[in-house]
Amino acid sequence: MCGIFGIYGHPEAAKMAYLGLHALQHRGQESAGIVTSDGTRLYTSRKMGLVADAFPPCELERLVGSAAIGHVRYSTAGESRIQEAQPFAVGCRHGSVAVAHNGNFVNVEAVRTNLETKGSIFQSSADTEVIVHLMARSQADDLAARLTDALRQVRGAYSLLVLTAESMVACRDPFGVRPLVLGRLRGGFVLASETSAFRLLDATYIREVEPGELLVVDGNGLTSHFPWGRQERRFCVFEQVYFARPDTIIDDRTIYQDRVRMGQRLADEHPVEADVVVGVPDSGLPAAIGYSQKSGIPLELGLIRSHYVGRTFIEPQQSIRHFGVKLKLSAVETVLVGKRVVVVDDSIVRGTTCRKIIKMIRAAGAKEVHFRVSSPPTKFPCYYGIDTPHRRELIAASHSVEEITQFLDCDTIGYLSVEGLRWSVGDQDGAHHCEACFTGDYPIEVSDHVRERQLKLVGT
Amino acid sequence: MCGIFGIYGHPEAAKMAYLGLHALQHRGQESAGIVTSDGTRLYTSRKMGLVADAFPPCELERLVGSAAIGHVRYSTAGESRIQEAQPFAVGCRHGSVAVAHNGNFVNVEAVRTNLETKGSIFQSSADTEVIVHLMARSQADDLAARLTDALRQVRGAYSLLVLTAESMVACRDPFGVRPLVLGRLRGGFVLASETSAFRLLDATYIREVEPGELLVVDGNGLTSHFPWGRQERRFCVFEQVYFARPDTIIDDRTIYQDRVRMGQRLADEHPVEADVVVGVPDSGLPAAIGYSQKSGIPLELGLIRSHYVGRTFIEPQQSIRHFGVKLKLSAVETVLVGKRVVVVDDSIVRGTTCRKIIKMIRAAGAKEVHFRVSSPPTKFPCYYGIDTPHRRELIAASHSVEEITQFLDCDTIGYLSVEGLRWSVGDQDGAHHCEACFTGDYPIEVSDHVRERQLKLVGT
Amino acid sequence: MCGIFGIYGHPEAAKMAYLGLHALQHRGQESAGIVTSDGTRLYTSRKMGLVADAFPPCELERLVGSAAIGHVRYSTAGESRIQEAQPFAVGCRHGSVAVAHNGNFVNVEAVRTNLETKGSIFQSSADTEVIVHLMARSQADDLAARLTDALRQVRGAYSLLVLTAESMVACRDPFGVRPLVLGRLRGGFVLASETSAFRLLDATYIREVEPGELLVVDGNGLTSHFPWGRQERRFCVFEQVYFARPDTIIDDRTIYQDRVRMGQRLADEHPVEADVVVGVPDSGLPAAIGYSQKSGIPLELGLIRSHYVGRTFIEPQQSIRHFGVKLKLSAVETVLVGKRVVVVDDSIVRGTTCRKIIKMIRAAGAKEVHFRVSSPPTKFPCYYGIDTPHRRELIAASHSVEEITQFLDCDTIGYLSVEGLRWSVGDQDGAHHCEACFTGDYPIEVSDHVRERQLKLVGT
Amino acid sequence: MCGIFGIYGHPEAAKMAYLGLHALQHRGQESAGIVTSDGTRLYTSRKMGLVADAFPPCELERLVGSAAIGHVRYSTAGESRIQEAQPFAVGCRHGSVAVAHNGNFVNVEAVRTNLETKGSIFQSSADTEVIVHLMARSQADDLAARLTDALRQVRGAYSLLVLTAESMVACRDPFGVRPLVLGRLRGGFVLASETSAFRLLDATYIREVEPGELLVVDGNGLTSHFPWGRQERRFCVFEQVYFARPDTIIDDRTIYQDRVRMGQRLADEHPVEADVVVGVPDSGLPAAIGYSQKSGIPLELGLIRSHYVGRTFIEPQQSIRHFGVKLKLSAVETVLVGKRVVVVDDSIVRGTTCRKIIKMIRAAGAKEVHFRVSSPPTKFPCYYGIDTPHRRELIAASHSVEEITQFLDCDTIGYLSVEGLRWSVGDQDGAHHCEACFTGDYPIEVSDHVRERQLKLVGT
Repeated sequence: MCGIFGIYGHPEAAKMAYLGLHALQHRGQESAGIVTSDGTRLYTSRKMGLVADAFPPCELERLVGSAAIGHVRYSTAGESRIQEAQPFAVGCRHGSVAVAHNGNFVNVEAVRTNLETKGSIFQSSADTEVIVHLMARSQADDLAARLTDALRQVRGAYSLLVLTAESMVACRDPFGVRPLVLGRLRGGFVLASETSAFRLLDATYIREVEPGELLVVDGNGLTSHFPWGRQERRFCVFEQVYFARPDTIIDDRTIYQDRVRMGQRLADEHPVEADVVVGVPDSGLPAAIGYSQKSGIPLELGLIRSHYVGRTFIEPQQSIRHFGVKLKLSAVETVLVGKRVVVVDDSIVRGTTCRKIIKMIRAAGAKEVHFRVSSPPTKFPCYYGIDTPHRRELIAASHSVEEITQFLDCDTIGYLSVEGLRWSVGDQDGAHHCEACFTGDYPIEVSDHVRERQLKLVGT
Repeated sequence: MCGIFGIYGHPEAAKMAYLGLHALQHRGQESAGIVTSDGTRLYTSRKMGLVADAFPPCELERLVGSAAIGHVRYSTAGESRIQEAQPFAVGCRHGSVAVAHNGNFVNVEAVRTNLETKGSIFQSSADTEVIVHLMARSQADDLAARLTDALRQVRGAYSLLVLTAESMVACRDPFGVRPLVLGRLRGGFVLASETSAFRLLDATYIREVEPGELLVVDGNGLTSHFPWGRQERRFCVFEQVYFARPDTIIDDRTIYQDRVRMGQRLADEHPVEADVVVGVPDSGLPAAIGYSQKSGIPLELGLIRSHYVGRTFIEPQQSIRHFGVKLKLSAVETVLVGKRVVVVDDSIVRGTTCRKIIKMIRAAGAKEVHFRVSSPPTKFPCYYGIDTPHRRELIAASHSVEEITQFLDCDTIGYLSVEGLRWSVGDQDGAHHCEACFTGDYPIEVSDHVRERQLKLVGT
Repeated sequence: MCGIFGIYGHPEAAKMAYLGLHALQHRGQESAGIVTSDGTRLYTSRKMGLVADAFPPCELERLVGSAAIGHVRYSTAGESRIQEAQPFAVGCRHGSVAVAHNGNFVNVEAVRTNLETKGSIFQSSADTEVIVHLMARSQADDLAARLTDALRQVRGAYSLLVLTAESMVACRDPFGVRPLVLGRLRGGFVLASETSAFRLLDATYIREVEPGELLVVDGNGLTSHFPWGRQERRFCVFEQVYFARPDTIIDDRTIYQDRVRMGQRLADEHPVEADVVVGVPDSGLPAAIGYSQKSGIPLELGLIRSHYVGRTFIEPQQSIRHFGVKLKLSAVETVLVGKRVVVVDDSIVRGTTCRKIIKMIRAAGAKEVHFRVSSPPTKFPCYYGIDTPHRRELIAASHSVEEITQFLDCDTIGYLSVEGLRWSVGDQDGAHHCEACFTGDYPIEVSDHVRERQLKLVGT
Repeated sequence: MCGIFGIYGHPEAAKMAYLGLHALQHRGQESAGIVTSDGTRLYTSRKMGLVADAFPPCELERLVGSAAIGHVRYSTAGESRIQEAQPFAVGCRHGSVAVAHNGNFVNVEAVRTNLETKGSIFQSSADTEVIVHLMARSQADDLAARLTDALRQVRGAYSLLVLTAESMVACRDPFGVRPLVLGRLRGGFVLASETSAFRLLDATYIREVEPGELLVVDGNGLTSHFPWGRQERRFCVFEQVYFARPDTIIDDRTIYQDRVRMGQRLADEHPVEADVVVGVPDSGLPAAIGYSQKSGIPLELGLIRSHYVGRTFIEPQQSIRHFGVKLKLSAVETVLVGKRVVVVDDSIVRGTTCRKIIKMIRAAGAKEVHFRVSSPPTKFPCYYGIDTPHRRELIAASHSVEEITQFLDCDTIGYLSVEGLRWSVGDQDGAHHCEACFTGDYPIEVSDHVRERQLKLVGT
């Protein structure tokens, strides 16, 4: 779970990248990085923390040039180190090159082992570094060909931006699992994980980068390539369920709109007699609105989100009930006391946070709590870049709905059906989405190594 | 606009103050301070910035003792300097004393001049320092008497916490304009600007500190005094309109509930044919829900608030339309395009931000924009501690509703009536509130000096 | 032990103060502060740490104006807090005023108590704040008169700089115990604790500020006052022994020169058969040169000082012999092995560091160690601003030379005589110096309060 | 110019590395790094700045394990970036490996190009990274063999420490140009650039690592290898002239002693009628002592070095004469005025600083200035790791002694002869030293690429 941004042909490329990354900040808060090109060489800056803190004015001024790529990284199960921050920038026989990457390669271990056998050395645990090695070893003449050479050897879900002194390349995996969109800003081109970045910059949205497409942006403008032919798109439905920003547009639909539909359908599938609908802010709010609209049960803001979350707090020794959740959320008592409450959230992963939220709602006086989830049970891990835990940790993988109901201590629970989800996102038979986390149907074959790595990461 | 917190008789007083201040962070983000007492001496820490950043573990550990007061300060028109941070702590003939203060004295200039004539020196521009001087000059034997002596010489709206090595005093101005509540935590007592701080700490709410009440907390427990008799409460209605946190409880009502009622009444007073109701997040959301409930027009989240606002961003030279607003808010196009939109916000001060928001909504394709304000026109400055600009800057002070409509470029505008506001907060004739910013009826006489100071601050 | 600097009438007053303070950095490393005036108001900046770290370019640019005073503060037995940093700047009936102070008032407790009785409040434990209070309470019309009023009520050793929006005042106590010199820089005037600050700035040295002199610098130039008549100078001889920088000029003599003479005389008074003379760097080097010159015993650098001292180091659990001393000094074995070594240092205070140094020299193979001290035994505490410990801690106060020899584990020890010291600094009968730390003859009467305070500070 | 430190078999390896690096801090102040091993994996920390600032307690605690290597880096002509900081740590087919390196490879460009052609990617411009790549590509079974494989492909002057989870390897180039010494600390082994690090840690010096020796330290103790047979040592004489710490021991002689001998010989070779000998602190002091001893002209400290140098200072717009030099050095006037002064320094590189120092001495009133240099004219660049500028910049490369005398504005100048230098360091015919910077006789062949790189770096 990361965000990437690229710009080519703009006098203030670094500043635009910085603002674009801010608009993608929800995709990763652990580290931020920008690499720029002035046509001759690359300038790199990578820092831990949020975009606004990572790039003070003097740092942005150092990043000269009219082309830039940027990256925000999510904190994953791996180590939190500056070495893992992207873009990854190195020198090689083809000159300087930087890569920003959102996604995961499913055969990365085998490729990495093979590279190491041939003498490659690795700075980080990132998949990105593998791509750079493969490109460096390619004998091809131009950047696009070298990137194609490299990608031919890996399998996975990815959106990539590559920057050299002279040009920029953007590409998206053949199934288009991870998002990437193309726009124009004045004379130049912009690329971003989500359209939200374009809106902030006043850039004009052109279109999605297509699944399997490889775009070269250089002094000659834009050239499009499809090195592996064209394939059906299998877009990650979890972007629509949870990850993307509500104002982001996919297929001419806003994410917000899809989420409201999920809530509406959920009301159809799991109706209940109740007094009030409450969404878990912020991600559960759109579905709560949909649920309220369809069911006629009034919506209220029964849970309030602090604006100052995301920071680490010192816990007193005399422990406080639901401490972690209360730093982030507070219950509005008058909305809940004596009420039959429908609580809507986007998904249940481990169930531990949901359980605390429900306890808090009950402590505020709710008479009944009916939990409604605007996606199907999350039963399978994601190997394509969403940091869901391994199957053993997914409560829905090993527990029945009844058992989950009991664990969460709610009166009823209702998950959106797979069909309901498909209807909500306008994909009748699910043919255009990756729904693996719900169905176990992985469009891209996953190696055992990757399954084990996931297991190991969770184990620590 | 500040938040204060006090605790007496708790083994982790500093940590509790730190968490209590976090729950009051919405009342002030410029600086944070904590002073503790270990029964013998005081320990002080004051920093610029947010509570979570200001107090790393080593700093909290330095703040030993079982009593503490804390303060969060809002950025006002005055200078942003560490000297202005509170609590204000000094030594005087009566020993060490620290004061945390929320509010404003309306005769502060005269008192300060008088003190200076007598030889007092001043570190800061804060009203708080005046109180400390007056207490230091009192001949009275005990802390409560000295504080009473001091307060007798000032006039204004205030909630105060005073800490010495041995005891803590809390007091509230005779009209109870500014909030202050009392609770229990294990064996000790807690005081806070809002009940939201109690909820985070698992403290039990006892009651409001009453208008004009002075509470002494020491080894003998709690003693209540009313040095100036009892008076009718005139609570700041702007706390209910905008400033307080939605989950905070005043008079057994949550602020959220009052705001929903404001929206409901607004729908009655200013109905309109429209397709969708949109609240300006976060403060406009509850009234938008009320408006939707009463009008039957569906509520949608047409504006999304970034979680990463509050930070300063570098603006590019090639300017971006509505830059400041877009860093904070984004429009969800599918909700707005082609629609007749009711936009609900809590108040209009200068009108400049509203104007940008409306432009952004129109740019997203709205056909009509009907602006609804869940409070009456803000025509008069506040001299009691809310940082509204001087009257010249208040758009409603000098412009008719038609002119404002034109300036904001909306189709219609509707303000809640004063009667509507009174109904919403359950104060039929407005006798129990200060509504001066809406009516110009100031319960506490304001000196010309203060009016001029306000003018001067705005002028710079 | 502090350093002060003032400048009036220079377009880059803050930058000059910053460089001047750097040249006085040896007088205090705990905190640094600068206050400037632009003719209308004062601008203040005070920070913990070294001058170069405390004032980044943006901070210096904020300090506008053509007049400035600055201060560097030594870490004393009291608390290390930003509140104690100087210059001390406040507002009072006479407007804004800032004071930088080097020295100590011996009746400060009585004056402070009296002020507190009258209602004064105190931010810090600094004597400086007392002066500001006294000035604020003065009814006099002009700054010089107010300062005179204030100083009339205190007794002690001090050099002071006072800055208001319009003018600057410099003054020195009637005995001239603490140093203060006057110079010119382009059209303006400069004042500093030592001439070393003038040398860095290319300022021209004019003369010392005379004992008891009060100089007013304003738009009319320089005016000199002697509010308490003229008195004999009693300059602190410890400045010459240890504290001042070697290149500083006092009475047309460099401090370096005086120290070489101390070593020469020491060789006469305490000759010894030895192979090599070694100075304890850096303060013992000049006397070591003098000792070598007079005795004919060759000088060698047997102890090397690290350039990176002054920083705090983490000590391992497996303790290291002489850890604290070895971080700072290293022995050069070939100089010491098998040799009879004369070690020269400027003074012995507690004796604990000397003891470690001698152990280190013995560990390097020295056959004999003869310790020579270029000042008399330090038997009495300083109440005038040099941070020597209380008498109980001064090894020479309670131990005979034989006992000290034994404690230090050296073969012989030799202190310079009082007469020798007088000869070295060219003051035949000691009439022009304060030698209280060696003789117990305090030129300014010391109150019991101050003696007790010293005791208490040391006790903690 | 860098310093390296290694320790194996100590419970507080990171803390020992931290202290050892502090004792080597004079060898590099730009960045500091430590890598530790706990037997299973490596822990890395690299920071810009001084050792004491780079490793706060929490950082040292993170660096667990009983083996460690560390590095301090000098600021060279290349870029100052965290990527250039060492030790360099990566993963490869042989597991994790870290390398700390002092020195330079003279055929690095060719090797790097060759590696890039084979697909290697580079993070930094450091020679160290080349070694890691070569080791990663080696097919050999054990670490020592892989390092031998790697070093067989490069040519240069180097001292290296390599750390893996299980073992540590130390090695020194066949000519022993760069220093490396071996010691014991409790049960474990220590390695360092200079013995000064052992002294601080109470470690026992065993011997130098021999030229061409490769030492393996692991659970089995110490094993010594000489993969390329034994060769004559050609130790860098500039370490003795300038770079090493005076208390460091080489061949049972301290550096200090050698420098005193240089001064003595210089007095023989270039006598002059004069009144006083002054050393340029700190590096010129030992030779000044030697000059004084032999000539009988008295030594004085005519130049004083600030303890607070090394920091960057803001220069005022109204420029100050000799600003850069005066921040660091001050002249003691009474020592210089009217005198014929012999000034002793260790070397002249560009001549610009010397020129300022001489101007300052003349401004202080010196009648004559005789400059004496305790090494021969520096005519040739160093390709083996000392950061001397390219030949074009070396004043002695292009100017006669007369021209230099004129440029420096001194009365006479006298350089130590090559024979004098050899005599001083006890190497009669210079057979055991690299004296290339003085003689142009490079013991290790230098490729044109390296000569050009040097040229390019200087050019920028």
